[in-house]
Amino acid sequence: MATVGDIGELALVERLGAQVGAARLSRAARPGFHLRIGIGDDAAAWHGDAGIWVATTDTMVEDVHFTRGKTPWRDVGWKAMAANVSDVAAMGGAPVSALVTLGLPRGLDVAAVDDLYAGMIAACIRYGALIVGGDVVSAGEVFVTVAMTGVCGAEPLRRSAARPGDAIAVSGPLGASAGGLHLLQAGRSGANGAEEALVRAHRRPEPQIEAGQRILHSGIRCGMDVSDGLLLDLRRLTKASGVGAKIEAARVPVAPGVEMLPEPLSFALGGGEDYQLLFAGPPQVVEQALESIGAGAVIGEATPDEPGVVRVMDAEGREMEVASAGWEHLR
Amino acid sequence: MATVGDIGELALVERLGAQVGAARLSRAARPGFHLRIGIGDDAAAWHGDAGIWVATTDTMVEDVHFTRGKTPWRDVGWKAMAANVSDVAAMGGAPVSALVTLGLPRGLDVAAVDDLYAGMIAACIRYGALIVGGDVVSAGEVFVTVAMTGVCGAEPLRRSAARPGDAIAVSGPLGASAGGLHLLQAGRSGANGAEEALVRAHRRPEPQIEAGQRILHSGIRCGMDVSDGLLLDLRRLTKASGVGAKIEAARVPVAPGVEMLPEPLSFALGGGEDYQLLFAGPPQVVEQALESIGAGAVIGEATPDEPGVVRVMDAEGREMEVASAGWEHLR
Repeated sequence: MATVGDIGELALVERLGAQVGAARLSRAARPGFHLRIGIGDDAAAWHGDAGIWVATTDTMVEDVHFTRGKTPWRDVGWKAMAANVSDVAAMGGAPVSALVTLGLPRGLDVAAVDDLYAGMIAACIRYGALIVGGDVVSAGEVFVTVAMTGVCGAEPLRRSAARPGDAIAVSGPLGASAGGLHLLQAGRSGANGAEEALVRAHRRPEPQIEAGQRILHSGIRCGMDVSDGLLLDLRRLTKASGVGAKIEAARVPVAPGVEMLPEPLSFALGGGEDYQLLFAGPPQVVEQALESIGAGAVIGEATPDEPGVVRVMDAEGREMEVASAGWEHLR
Repeated sequence: MATVGDIGELALVERLGAQVGAARLSRAARPGFHLRIGIGDDAAAWHGDAGIWVATTDTMVEDVHFTRGKTPWRDVGWKAMAANVSDVAAMGGAPVSALVTLGLPRGLDVAAVDDLYAGMIAACIRYGALIVGGDVVSAGEVFVTVAMTGVCGAEPLRRSAARPGDAIAVSGPLGASAGGLHLLQAGRSGANGAEEALVRAHRRPEPQIEAGQRILHSGIRCGMDVSDGLLLDLRRLTKASGVGAKIEAARVPVAPGVEMLPEPLSFALGGGEDYQLLFAGPPQVVEQALESIGAGAVIGEATPDEPGVVRVMDAEGREMEVASAGWEHLR
C-alpha cells in the first residue's frame, strides 16, 4: 500500500483537492460568501458581505487527542472539524471556510489520509463549512489543525458577559461523549440502543450551530461551548466574567444512557466533548432562549463570589465536594 | 528554568496573550477591520467591510523546517509569520488576522516559547498583522502553525492566469536566503556587510506586501510568491496556467553577495524562502508593474509549450541543463 512518502506532497495535495471537489462542498457555502479561489493557490479568496467574522483554530495530535488504531481515521477527521465548528457555534455563528493542515509521518498509508479527509468532508457537508485550502507537512507524529472562519448575524456571544444574578443554562444533555468513551474503554461498543448512542456521541459529537444562533438572537450576550467538561468550562466563563456561580446538581441534564453508568453526575459535570452550549443572561431572556431551542435547562446562577469559583449544590441545598474535573493540556 | 509542562496550558495562554497585549498590535489593524473579541474566547471576532478576503496557513515543524539550537527561536517565529504574510502578499493583499497554533513538548523551556512568540510579534508589527487567537497543544516535537486572513483591494492574483506570450517577471533579486543558509552551514555568519546581508535574508526574510499590491493595481492577474525556489514555483505557476515558460538565465536578478558564492545562478534558480513575487501578464502591463514597484525584472515569457515545462536559456540562446531544484515535502 502506498505511503505518504511514496507519493509526495504535490500528488497528495492534488488527491485531497479532488476529494474536496468531488464532495461539491461549495454548494453548502453561506449566503454573502462567494468563493473566488479555492485549494491550490497561495491563499484562498472569497468575496464577503460586510458583517461580523469569527475565526478559530483547533488541533488534534496523535497520542494526545487520539491513538492510532483505536480511533478510526474518519472519526479523527470528523472531530477535528467538529471542534472548530463548535467554537464557531459558541459565538452564535455559522461556519464559512476551513483551512486544513496535516502533519504526516512519511510512512503513513495514503489510505489513512483519505479516511481522515473523508471524516472532515462529512462534517463539512453536515455543518455547511467549505475546505478552501491548507498545508501538508512532514512530521514525526500525525497532527490535524483546522482553522475556521464563520459569520455571526449579531454581536457574538462572549465568555466575559455574565453578571451576578444571571441564570446559567446549557443547551442540552451532558456526559454522552464521556459515557461513550467509558464504554469503549471497557470494551463495550454498543450492546443496546442506549449504549450505541453514547458511543456514537463520543465518535461523532454534534456541534450546536442552530442552538447558538437561536441563543444569540434571543438576546443572550454570554456563552461558550462545553468542550473540556461543564465545571472546567464554567470556571473559565465565570473567571472571564468576574463572577462566581452556584449550580444545582439535580438540574444538570444528564444524557440518556449515562444514568446506567457508575456516578453519572461525574460524567455530566466533568466529561468533555459534548459540544453543548453553556450560556448566561437575565433569567427571562435565558428562558426565552431555551424555549427557542426547544432543549436544555437552567442549571444555576451567577453569583458575586470570587471570580471563577463554582459551587455545586445537592438537592438539600448543601455544597457538594466535587473533584477537580475536566481536561487541561500540557501538564 | 520553568518548562511548558510546569506551568500548564492556561498559564501559558495567559502569558502569550499578555505578550500580544503589551505589543499593542491592534494599532496596526487594517482600515475596515474592527476587532471585537481577541485572544481568550472560543473564537476571535471582528467586524469587516464587504470585500475580498484571503486566507492561508503555513506550518513549521522541528527537524523538518528548523533545528532546535541551530535556528534561534525568534527567527523560527518570524519565519512562521512571514511565510503566511508572503502568501497574502502573493494574492496582492494585506494581512489582517493571525491564529497561532503551537505544538509543544512538555519539557520545552517557557523561555523558548516567549522567544518564539517575540519573533512572531516582531513580524506582526512589521507587516500589520494582528494575532487574534490560537491553540496550544501538547506534542512530541515543536510545530508552529499560523492561519492568516487578509484583504485584497481587487480581484486577487492567481497562479492560473498566465497566457502564452505573457512576460514573466520577479519583483526583486533572488538567492539571498539560500546564500545565507550556505554561509551559515559553512560556519560563516557574516565576515563582511555582504555576507551579513545574506545571513539576515535567511533569518528574517521580507515578504513583499507593497509590491504585491502595486502589481495587482497595475492590472496584473497572475502571480505567486517564490517560497520553494524560482524554477519549482514557476513550474507550479505554468502548470496551473496551462502554459510553458522560457526564461533567460542572464536576466534573473541575483541577490548582491550571491555572486561571490560557487554557482550563484543555482542559488537564484533553486533557492527558496526569498519571498519575492513571481508574476506574469502582457509585456506592457508587466513593465508598468515593475516601474511601480521600482525593482525586479522581466526574466522570460510564457510559451505554448507543454504545461509546467520551464526552459532556461543561456546568453547564446541555448537551452541549459538545470538540475531539478526546489523543495518538496514528504518525499
